[in-house]
Amino acid sequence: MVSEKILANLKRSSWIRAMFEQGENLRKKYGADNVYDFSLGNPDLEPPQKVKEVLKKTVLSDIPKMHGYMSNAGYADVRAAVAESLRKTKGVPVEASHVVMQCGAGGAMNVVLKTILNPGEEVIVLAPYFAEYLFYIDNHGGIPVIVDTDRETFQPDAEKIHDAITPKTRAIIINSPNNPSGVIYSRRSVESISEVIEKRQKEFGTTICVISDEPYDKIVYDGAEVPSVFEVFRNSVIVNSYSKSLSLPGERIGFVAVNPRIGETSDLVDGLIFSTRTLGFVNAPALFQRILPESLDAQVAVDVYKKRRDMLYEIVTKAGFKCIKPQGAFYLFPQSPIEDDVKFCSEALKYNMIIVPGTGFGFRGFFRLAYCVDEKTIVNSQKAFEALAAEFI
Amino acid sequence: MVSEKILANLKRSSWIRAMFEQGENLRKKYGADNVYDFSLGNPDLEPPQKVKEVLKKTVLSDIPKMHGYMSNAGYADVRAAVAESLRKTKGVPVEASHVVMQCGAGGAMNVVLKTILNPGEEVIVLAPYFAEYLFYIDNHGGIPVIVDTDRETFQPDAEKIHDAITPKTRAIIINSPNNPSGVIYSRRSVESISEVIEKRQKEFGTTICVISDEPYDKIVYDGAEVPSVFEVFRNSVIVNSYSKSLSLPGERIGFVAVNPRIGETSDLVDGLIFSTRTLGFVNAPALFQRILPESLDAQVAVDVYKKRRDMLYEIVTKAGFKCIKPQGAFYLFPQSPIEDDVKFCSEALKYNMIIVPGTGFGFRGFFRLAYCVDEKTIVNSQKAFEALAAEFI
Repeated sequence: MVSEKILANLKRSSWIRAMFEQGENLRKKYGADNVYDFSLGNPDLEPPQKVKEVLKKTVLSDIPKMHGYMSNAGYADVRAAVAESLRKTKGVPVEASHVVMQCGAGGAMNVVLKTILNPGEEVIVLAPYFAEYLFYIDNHGGIPVIVDTDRETFQPDAEKIHDAITPKTRAIIINSPNNPSGVIYSRRSVESISEVIEKRQKEFGTTICVISDEPYDKIVYDGAEVPSVFEVFRNSVIVNSYSKSLSLPGERIGFVAVNPRIGETSDLVDGLIFSTRTLGFVNAPALFQRILPESLDAQVAVDVYKKRRDMLYEIVTKAGFKCIKPQGAFYLFPQSPIEDDVKFCSEALKYNMIIVPGTGFGFRGFFRLAYCVDEKTIVNSQKAFEALAAEFI
Repeated sequence: MVSEKILANLKRSSWIRAMFEQGENLRKKYGADNVYDFSLGNPDLEPPQKVKEVLKKTVLSDIPKMHGYMSNAGYADVRAAVAESLRKTKGVPVEASHVVMQCGAGGAMNVVLKTILNPGEEVIVLAPYFAEYLFYIDNHGGIPVIVDTDRETFQPDAEKIHDAITPKTRAIIINSPNNPSGVIYSRRSVESISEVIEKRQKEFGTTICVISDEPYDKIVYDGAEVPSVFEVFRNSVIVNSYSKSLSLPGERIGFVAVNPRIGETSDLVDGLIFSTRTLGFVNAPALFQRILPESLDAQVAVDVYKKRRDMLYEIVTKAGFKCIKPQGAFYLFPQSPIEDDVKFCSEALKYNMIIVPGTGFGFRGFFRLAYCVDEKTIVNSQKAFEALAAEFI
């Protein structure tokens, strides 16, 4: 009963399942404490105390119809609160009417792509990338066009992007801080992308939408700057969730915001609301919308992630792996000592280590370490990294 | 920046917005109490006390990682609890492995259609229908094929369905108790549909999936029977939510269940899980999954809806409108006294009444009354119905 395309996808991704099953087997055999699972980007930190308190207070308040439908765009006061939080950080006058509440950033990305894509239009994706983007683009009849970033710095390459833009280019997805590299795209990087987009738009008479997927915008270290996409790109939308910044990934709460600098935004916002409804999301979950206005100033314990980054980075590099020290998200993306990263990750299993090949993010020759795991796992993994290095470096 | 298809859809549906805006104006001018708004299928009853208590208890328990990601299919114990509730009512041995938790029934419908449809395949929809079905089918490259039910009883017509089935027919959507008619498809009706499907499947060598959308399965009156789709149709899936049965529509919690009688169901379930992930739903909201195991025996106050049905039915029919007395959901679907139902509903506004034309449900010549409104609104509306009857009947 399954469509041909999905059957093919299930087959193609069977190696991922096999790897997870091997991980499960390792845990059963050696105990979870003796398995170093760096495979999942699942925030393990609890939501901020403030968020928990607001949630309790809201549930106990038991306001009539608090679990009912609201406008597909979300509660008016929640949209206003999100807009206010964006005004503070994005440097542009975002209003409630520019914000549409969403079921997480994954939902938001689908809503944006559904709203803007005509069949066969192209979407530029910068590798390494969050692998789900390719499915999201395909869902709505788009064609992904992969453009590699620099293999040393993972910074975008404006010249390559220039060459990849065609008259059919409808959008480019920017994800910074990046999953899987953890790298923040520098101001120079995004400004140079903006220049080539402006140039190509004029040349082809097209409009290219910059979709900025920012779930890690609050997971930033060393006082690094994440340039405001709304300031740099006029034709832009921001997609975000509170999965990472408030550690609420299971609750599916996020938003899309349209850059007010676009000018006349009502068609675009109406389109986003229409897609929210007709893709079956209907509205972002009511209760987790309600807690936002009082929770937006809260933040998950970034210092804990930072400490882990420093620990893991030291272990990995001391063992001899080549790795950039990223300033955001909760990932390291070291170079694989052998070109075949899938083989390398498969070999790592014998040291009880579960890691994800760069190939899964469109970037062969690397592997991703998600350090949203407790410190003990990081400390205990040192010997495994050393053994891996001894065998492969 | 909006795709051509969505721009066209926004234009097409502008009359709905215009009607809602007129309704808002009426409320501002005459006060909400003097406007009879029967337009929205938004359950106004509170969730059962039991559900509220379980929600409070769960939030206060503050179990570690309770807002984190879980398997895309949902929590194992929640899937098992939903399976158990289905075993009790559907007459087939549903297991946890047949259930995938969803973001509401709207999400579930999209997940099912995405999973089964190859491009250009046809999906039979019985009119009158929930209008969103047409968008859902189009999202995934399917072609809706509309088949009218009987204009007196709103029961499906097996012969017409037989004639509508082609080698490209991939699925048929059944929605009983029905939105907008409130009618429950009789055992004879569904069994006769099953016969023509069996016949056509053999003839064409195809597999036709029956998608049973059952959000109103608990909103049933007069001890009426809703035949088990899993018993009647072998190749079937159930799509449902707790939006109506537990009055939680804003929280987006539902499920899809695969009929164990299909036999080998693992590809189909894997496909559903894949689509849940890649459509951006990722998982059904964590907290509202967690409250289900203890809430599934609870039920919204159906007797309140029944009383309203009886009151509104009496007012409408006494005023002279022709209307079947339905045994489910919270809708009446009377015949429009003039053929142009859009015009009729527009004229109703001058009596401060907001109602939805049957044309919006693919069934010209009728109008829908949603009676999830308080009794006072129903009582007060009597004069408006009488005035409408005096003018049009």
